[in-house]
Amino acid sequence: MSFEAPTKDMLFNIEHLSGWSRVRRLPGHDALELGDVAAILEELGRFCVEEIAPLNAPGDQAGSRFDAGRVTLPAGFKEAYAQFVDMGWQSLQHPEEFGGQGLPRSVGAAATEILNAANMSFALCPLLTDGAIEALLTAGSEATKASYLANLVSGKWTGTMNLTEPQAGSDLALLRTRADPQDDGTYRITGTKIFITYGEHELSQNTIHLVLARTPDAPAGVKGISLFLVPKFLVTPDGALGDRNAVHCISIEHKLGITASPTAVLDYEGATGFLLGAENSGLECMFEMMNAARFAVGLQGVALGERAYQQALAFAKERVQSRPVDGSSREAVAIINHPDVRRMLMRMRALTEGGRALSAFAAGWQDLARHAETAGDRAEAVAFSEFLIPLVKGFCTENGVEIASTGVQIHGGMGFIEETGAAQHYRDARILPIYEGTTAIQANDLIGRKTLRDGGETALRFVALIEQTEQELLRGSTAAQTMAARLSAAREAFLSAVRYVLQVGKQDANAAFAGGVPYLMLAGNLMAGWQLARSLLVAEAALARGEDPAFMTAKIATARFYGDHILPETAVQRDRIVEGADSLLSAVL
Amino acid sequence: MSFEAPTKDMLFNIEHLSGWSRVRRLPGHDALELGDVAAILEELGRFCVEEIAPLNAPGDQAGSRFDAGRVTLPAGFKEAYAQFVDMGWQSLQHPEEFGGQGLPRSVGAAATEILNAANMSFALCPLLTDGAIEALLTAGSEATKASYLANLVSGKWTGTMNLTEPQAGSDLALLRTRADPQDDGTYRITGTKIFITYGEHELSQNTIHLVLARTPDAPAGVKGISLFLVPKFLVTPDGALGDRNAVHCISIEHKLGITASPTAVLDYEGATGFLLGAENSGLECMFEMMNAARFAVGLQGVALGERAYQQALAFAKERVQSRPVDGSSREAVAIINHPDVRRMLMRMRALTEGGRALSAFAAGWQDLARHAETAGDRAEAVAFSEFLIPLVKGFCTENGVEIASTGVQIHGGMGFIEETGAAQHYRDARILPIYEGTTAIQANDLIGRKTLRDGGETALRFVALIEQTEQELLRGSTAAQTMAARLSAAREAFLSAVRYVLQVGKQDANAAFAGGVPYLMLAGNLMAGWQLARSLLVAEAALARGEDPAFMTAKIATARFYGDHILPETAVQRDRIVEGADSLLSAVL
Repeated sequence: MSFEAPTKDMLFNIEHLSGWSRVRRLPGHDALELGDVAAILEELGRFCVEEIAPLNAPGDQAGSRFDAGRVTLPAGFKEAYAQFVDMGWQSLQHPEEFGGQGLPRSVGAAATEILNAANMSFALCPLLTDGAIEALLTAGSEATKASYLANLVSGKWTGTMNLTEPQAGSDLALLRTRADPQDDGTYRITGTKIFITYGEHELSQNTIHLVLARTPDAPAGVKGISLFLVPKFLVTPDGALGDRNAVHCISIEHKLGITASPTAVLDYEGATGFLLGAENSGLECMFEMMNAARFAVGLQGVALGERAYQQALAFAKERVQSRPVDGSSREAVAIINHPDVRRMLMRMRALTEGGRALSAFAAGWQDLARHAETAGDRAEAVAFSEFLIPLVKGFCTENGVEIASTGVQIHGGMGFIEETGAAQHYRDARILPIYEGTTAIQANDLIGRKTLRDGGETALRFVALIEQTEQELLRGSTAAQTMAARLSAAREAFLSAVRYVLQVGKQDANAAFAGGVPYLMLAGNLMAGWQLARSLLVAEAALARGEDPAFMTAKIATARFYGDHILPETAVQRDRIVEGADSLLSAVL
Repeated sequence: MSFEAPTKDMLFNIEHLSGWSRVRRLPGHDALELGDVAAILEELGRFCVEEIAPLNAPGDQAGSRFDAGRVTLPAGFKEAYAQFVDMGWQSLQHPEEFGGQGLPRSVGAAATEILNAANMSFALCPLLTDGAIEALLTAGSEATKASYLANLVSGKWTGTMNLTEPQAGSDLALLRTRADPQDDGTYRITGTKIFITYGEHELSQNTIHLVLARTPDAPAGVKGISLFLVPKFLVTPDGALGDRNAVHCISIEHKLGITASPTAVLDYEGATGFLLGAENSGLECMFEMMNAARFAVGLQGVALGERAYQQALAFAKERVQSRPVDGSSREAVAIINHPDVRRMLMRMRALTEGGRALSAFAAGWQDLARHAETAGDRAEAVAFSEFLIPLVKGFCTENGVEIASTGVQIHGGMGFIEETGAAQHYRDARILPIYEGTTAIQANDLIGRKTLRDGGETALRFVALIEQTEQELLRGSTAAQTMAARLSAAREAFLSAVRYVLQVGKQDANAAFAGGVPYLMLAGNLMAGWQLARSLLVAEAALARGEDPAFMTAKIATARFYGDHILPETAVQRDRIVEGADSLLSAVL
């Protein structure tokens, strides 16, 4: 179960798919060379391979333990986290103003994937801290930022997101946690929050909870939600840790996977909270944080795919079973020689590299959305970036589950035995299409806010760009021309789906949303396939120049497989969206 | 987590899809009325709901325990098994000559599904005993049959299948277990077998192991394998239990799922074995047993689908989250009202009912294959039945995994918490596409022995029958006509695939087998869709007569959903098979 960070593929994507030539010229990044990025990712890879990945299987077996309000993480987690902080990994993509390294998202995305591939249960803690930092940057007052940001950016303190309550999961309108204003400007927070990842632990001295709650006279529904910062330990004016706040962990969950990460039930019993942003604008304030978290969870899908792929590939090269179907040997051979094992491995690889390519593409637009010089450029990048986030989250996490499942299958009976390790990925992966908004929630966002709201404008801009890639492919090799045909068919399927959504969306919402997840999966498939088509062009050109033949040949093979085996799924999704609503909606359940 | 046996759907399938009018007239079954079948299945359903299903979740939590050679099953299993035997459920489909009830497979299949839906870990014990009975009936001498069959048929003794060894999983050619002939006609069996389901337990007084092993001068490979009966306790000439045989359990596995069922490592240290059939014909002797077991594992896929569906449906009716997308309520509603939850539930239902319909169809051919009066009828039924077995095994188990995964998704965050129960199905399901031959092994069988060997004759006979159904559909309602178009497109896709396999199969085995699993999934999808199309015709006619409107309307809805959302997947599978081999086989892994 050794693990290697796929830094080469990441650097290829950063250079060729993230719009690196633009990203590196953005304010703050202009000194950044690709060689520096390579050095950073390789150093992180080394640390993760040596220190973090070895804790993954033992951490799963031990799990987090709860006893009388305290949570104990598996052996080694505390020491590893201390090293993680010492080496500055938490600060990678955060502003230099608060002690961060200010690296672009394009690089941060790769780092997030590496850490999660090494150990998803471990990586969840920094992932949530990243989210808390985003929220504070967006909604925190100067005083709050001054009090909390530096310690979060360094990783000395950790962060959590407190949204869910027993009756309010996907539906935040049902939140009941109360926030009563006090004379000193603070609020008393009272209520129970569940599913709080790293809600209690002893990795850090303080935990900064970001909590959604209602003030007494707030309007009903999501318009009456406010966002509060509730530290586990209050912070004195000089920045030292003060009194313990009235928030306590009353239990942790017994979960299918990511068992090393504690998922806490937190009781707020009049805890002191600090308002972030304006009252009743909590959801708005959470938005940046949610976007960052959704993107990061999509990366977890890619990460788990990579980990499961590496493990299955190693097993398939070692395990000897059965003679080749073509009779080329009279002895049993390693199973990697059997066509169906190859098919499974190639599918795992194509979905993983496709997801990584899509994420790199999306990360580039996130950088431009934040830092492009003109308002027009930023607006375009915001639209692109926001269209892509539900795709990264939904498509890459659904694929993560499939890839992990295929990883078990390749192991045969051994895969079903826990000690082998393939089963852990299958268990861990299952949370990904659920938390930070289920795939259906992502699809609703994609249809409602990202397609209907702008009348399909962003979707159609992507279509125009894809057509340009098709034209380039048509001028290329046979493989490129085949890819052009596959991409063209997928783009046409997407176009039909967009037109259908636009047409029925206003008058028959049920019919549009009935095809929501198929629409998301179609769009994700197309966008990932498009990135691999772009990669194919780059790789063919590089190969012609004699650059890194092994890598470039493999990239072309992945793209071709994706084109032949995965892009055609868009046709079925189109049928489901455009022709399937009636049989779905009319059935009595 | 209550569970209800789907007897109504089963009776519909037995009556309308299994060729009941022919099956009930077969020798031995001629007194059987559908009312009797209903009474049997309802009685079994009651027993399973009351006694077996409640042990499923606690059994998963407790797991089987191993201590010093002894295996302890979870609380309640021993008592439930005793009741199971007392009520005669083991004997259902076995010959009356040995104390069985001689019911047709068409009925036995439904019974197997009910028991497995209630508790798959429990049901595995009778499932393996069924297999051992098949093997004895096929290969046992009269003396062996007389000594063992009655106690196996009653369930007083249980059976196991011992194929796998650490180096020999899918590849039985690599078996090393030795069988040394003794002067008294017995053999001394020496070796280690792994993954032996219910290889050790205390539910029954004796366990009859069926063991594959090699005699000293056996030829290499699968042609040198013989089948032996090795009882845990030797049986004295008067039928009493004698000495403990030299076979012992040295450990049980720590598994992802079906944790209540013990999966044993068995050490044979010169155990006394009795040859079944001729030396070196072990694989042939195992064939009937393997076919029966593969079919039963396919039924486990359907069973788990049903259980997961019922659980997700109940949750979706209770869980209130979010307002409807069409704005029809200002309050949050039960999530079953949300289009994507409906989509997921309908897909679970359609795959489950499709799998059940396919299994019922296959079971009918099994009955005819064994008992039809003319040799010609039997030969046709054998060909049909054997074509369908890899489809039932492969298609229904792959779907079982998908359905269980969707069941977790519908539960949202709650699904990831073990106490909810949805996660158990997801863990349990994962073994189904692996044991009794992985999906790829089924696909190899389908391509090699079931398609290439008869030059596609059986496949083309199915195609002709499907065309007849299309003609009937075209004379029917709008829904029927739409179904005709869907079925026709799927049948065309299958035909392309069959032609491709026939064309390349002889000269380029790798290219044919590269599409093996897609071919199996295409064929399974088509055959299941065909049975639902037949069901739609029956249901529309029944509805016109005013019979059971709720059931018939639901059946039509399921068929329509299957037609619109699942049958179109055949087009993608066709592309993968016919156009995808090169990009799969040429990639360097």
